[in-house]
Amino acid sequence: MRVFSSLVLGLFFIYQSANSQIIQPSNRPNKTQKLLIERGYGMFIHFGVNTFANKEWSDGTLPATIYNPVNLDCDQWVRVARDAGFRYVLLVTKHHDGFCLWDSKYTEYDVASSPVKTDVVAEVAKACQKYDLELGIYYSLWDRNHPAYTDKNPNVYVDYMINQLTELLMNYGAICELWFDGGWDREVADWDLDRVYKFVKGIQPHCAVGVNHTIELEPCSREFALPDSMIVDNKYTFQYFPGDFRLWDPKIAHKLDEKQYIHKGESYYLPFENTICLSKRWNWFQKDDFRPVRELDELEELFYWCTDNGNTLVMNVPPDNTGRIREHEVNAIIALGLRLNIEKGKPLPRNGKFISLKATVSASSIINDDEVMFGAQLAVDGGMQTRWAASDTLSILEINLDPKKPFNKISIFEFQDSKDGGDGFSNYRINRIQSYSIEIFKNKEWQTIYMDDKSMGDCKVIRFPYSYQTSKLRFRVLKATAPPSIYEINVIQSDTKGYF
Amino acid sequence: MRVFSSLVLGLFFIYQSANSQIIQPSNRPNKTQKLLIERGYGMFIHFGVNTFANKEWSDGTLPATIYNPVNLDCDQWVRVARDAGFRYVLLVTKHHDGFCLWDSKYTEYDVASSPVKTDVVAEVAKACQKYDLELGIYYSLWDRNHPAYTDKNPNVYVDYMINQLTELLMNYGAICELWFDGGWDREVADWDLDRVYKFVKGIQPHCAVGVNHTIELEPCSREFALPDSMIVDNKYTFQYFPGDFRLWDPKIAHKLDEKQYIHKGESYYLPFENTICLSKRWNWFQKDDFRPVRELDELEELFYWCTDNGNTLVMNVPPDNTGRIREHEVNAIIALGLRLNIEKGKPLPRNGKFISLKATVSASSIINDDEVMFGAQLAVDGGMQTRWAASDTLSILEINLDPKKPFNKISIFEFQDSKDGGDGFSNYRINRIQSYSIEIFKNKEWQTIYMDDKSMGDCKVIRFPYSYQTSKLRFRVLKATAPPSIYEINVIQSDTKGYF
Repeated sequence: MRVFSSLVLGLFFIYQSANSQIIQPSNRPNKTQKLLIERGYGMFIHFGVNTFANKEWSDGTLPATIYNPVNLDCDQWVRVARDAGFRYVLLVTKHHDGFCLWDSKYTEYDVASSPVKTDVVAEVAKACQKYDLELGIYYSLWDRNHPAYTDKNPNVYVDYMINQLTELLMNYGAICELWFDGGWDREVADWDLDRVYKFVKGIQPHCAVGVNHTIELEPCSREFALPDSMIVDNKYTFQYFPGDFRLWDPKIAHKLDEKQYIHKGESYYLPFENTICLSKRWNWFQKDDFRPVRELDELEELFYWCTDNGNTLVMNVPPDNTGRIREHEVNAIIALGLRLNIEKGKPLPRNGKFISLKATVSASSIINDDEVMFGAQLAVDGGMQTRWAASDTLSILEINLDPKKPFNKISIFEFQDSKDGGDGFSNYRINRIQSYSIEIFKNKEWQTIYMDDKSMGDCKVIRFPYSYQTSKLRFRVLKATAPPSIYEINVIQSDTKGYF
Repeated sequence: MRVFSSLVLGLFFIYQSANSQIIQPSNRPNKTQKLLIERGYGMFIHFGVNTFANKEWSDGTLPATIYNPVNLDCDQWVRVARDAGFRYVLLVTKHHDGFCLWDSKYTEYDVASSPVKTDVVAEVAKACQKYDLELGIYYSLWDRNHPAYTDKNPNVYVDYMINQLTELLMNYGAICELWFDGGWDREVADWDLDRVYKFVKGIQPHCAVGVNHTIELEPCSREFALPDSMIVDNKYTFQYFPGDFRLWDPKIAHKLDEKQYIHKGESYYLPFENTICLSKRWNWFQKDDFRPVRELDELEELFYWCTDNGNTLVMNVPPDNTGRIREHEVNAIIALGLRLNIEKGKPLPRNGKFISLKATVSASSIINDDEVMFGAQLAVDGGMQTRWAASDTLSILEINLDPKKPFNKISIFEFQDSKDGGDGFSNYRINRIQSYSIEIFKNKEWQTIYMDDKSMGDCKVIRFPYSYQTSKLRFRVLKATAPPSIYEINVIQSDTKGYF
């Protein structure tokens, strides 16, 4: 089923293309980027042939016949997205396996060859219109199924992509975002991104285009710059140019994420789109077994972190092999939306003010005395990939604060050991810290304002019923199963009420 | 320091005594009991010589000189009580050790013999007046210090008590409640409760009097009836008569607690006062080391449970040996008050409707196949001392529900193993259940609506963003360190908003 007639839409886009938003050197967001930032919060949907094989990635040989959801309900996906406060849906239309979620004229490896035959892209597009959400499309550059991919002439596959993108961009209404993945499998030049990008903009001028691992550390190095490196303007360079936003799935932006990147000596403004999974197990495709979701506190803090500072978040909520989002996952994302009180047409809610960011800190111990790799300052640097690591289980981190600045919340992201989740992709996180306290220096002595003896969890949020002010704050580990390590500890002044 | 002049107060109470509220056979609360029920929520304060010895109980030989709070601040205690929404303060004026928190003319074992000398009862009474809270008094019948206690003639010690109670009831303003403890150490008759009770009422007619372990299983058996037995009217009898309310510290009332008890063939109405500790370690007197408080969810559910059904709750919040309530404990009770939104002059907040109470249930296993002691029905019987116990770690409890009745919350009180806390009194609770899910029967199949893989905690509360209706609900244990056991699982329809 098609949402609009291709003819009408074609004419519409020909008219629009006069206003194409090709990225230009700039130090501020262009119209397309502004729209992207305003959307801010999208539901990422992975549902493909892997869903029916308990796999995260497959090699293009899984038969299309296994794709057989007995209760396919794309309307439910988008209704849940709407109810949860998402503003767009980012649908994986083709993963690395090459299986297409629409009836593509250019391959047989698609839903039309499955027992169900439903054009999932069409169904999702229809539901997005019904529930007034925008639609984004994930499309894997890397294709492990189609013969064109292995042609000696790389343009043969680019032609295939252009054909498929024509289908996706012409037949399903407005597409707000195009998310390219798997670029690592070929030389950059082989993707002919300039052609692809201009082609996309010619049809849908305000479709924001991003390629995973957008930025590299050195020109032509193919060493991806991690989000924690992205805190200096004009230091790093494009790996994939052109594009309208940065990606480094599944890492999280630095709190002080900067936006200027170099291409051929010119500087471009690029927001960052964060990607996280609702599942605690970090699975993108749903598995047969049921998996727990992240705790609400962690989801809330990650939401704030990722949608702040002109960046965006897509949260992966994968339907299961019956074709529906599982009820316990529905509950979790709707509960998050209720907690955040996301309102349509209004700016997304923000966290409070971080008063500990870049503070002076000291630690009772540092593993191998390696200040550079594991120093105390890394717990307050705003980077989610760097961390303080102690050498003793009983450790203290001391943070100097401005006593004029109040705080009423602390969030702690603990580094955790991980254990293989058994599906070749997902994993369990295992806490180290089992008991801990928070102390502030007041009236010339240390005062304990919080203590807990429950395993810290994936993101511990401590809320105080009123604000404190202090010159020094201590995080004290009282018991741990291994030397503690902290990605980030954030001392925050929040205006949010009603959590007690 | 005395709050009122004894003379003025004496005249006041002589006037009042014309309206003495001596308990009478009845099937409804009298005025005194109505006032007790309306108060509903009190802060229990244990602060005595034990506070300075890291002890729960002592034998009356600790020197008074160790009682030396360097920063005694009774005003803080009551201000915190007010801020947290408590409506009265129940102060331990004398524990079993016999040490008195006021300057008693009848003993030297009191605050006047301590380095500090402050009359703590007076300070608390003054603060209660300042912050508009009522004042209750705990007084131990059992006295391990005073020589009168061991006199062959029991009346010698009763005279001592009457003298001390005169001080307490005449010098500190209105006393809303008198809480007697330690009655087990003597024959019932030796306490001459009839005399003591009438004496109290003669001075303060609306002072509610209770004696710990009020009710016994059989007349003159001295076998205390546990709160779980108190669900049949007129089956059990007074151990200690007269009194205005029941006590069985520190057990919690049955959800279906009944109120009629027999004395000499007549039936009396008696509310139950529940007693719990803010501390997870269940310590009544504060220790040198810092101890974690109960989690907010557990506190909330216990609050609802204990203040419901015409019963009351006193929560123990002990000051430390500096003389102040510790900041992390202050935070916890104020956070609880904020969550509950307790408002002065209004009825205390209530939990939602329990739709699983007394439901038909079945379990996948029962330890020793002992239905009577560990049957599945004990998990929904409303009794906090009885429990279902499984024989396998992987266990399922299935609850039949009325599909016309919606629910949006589940609370689970897990039986836990306990480990000695090292002070001869307190203990640690250790969870068994590590992973679990909730399923409902819908559209002819089981649907998982919740799952978690975090240790269950002391009281797990699961909130759903919308209400479900189902004919059957399953609690499924997915992982446990020992066969699970559940005191109570409650399926609840709650109107409370704002917790997400």
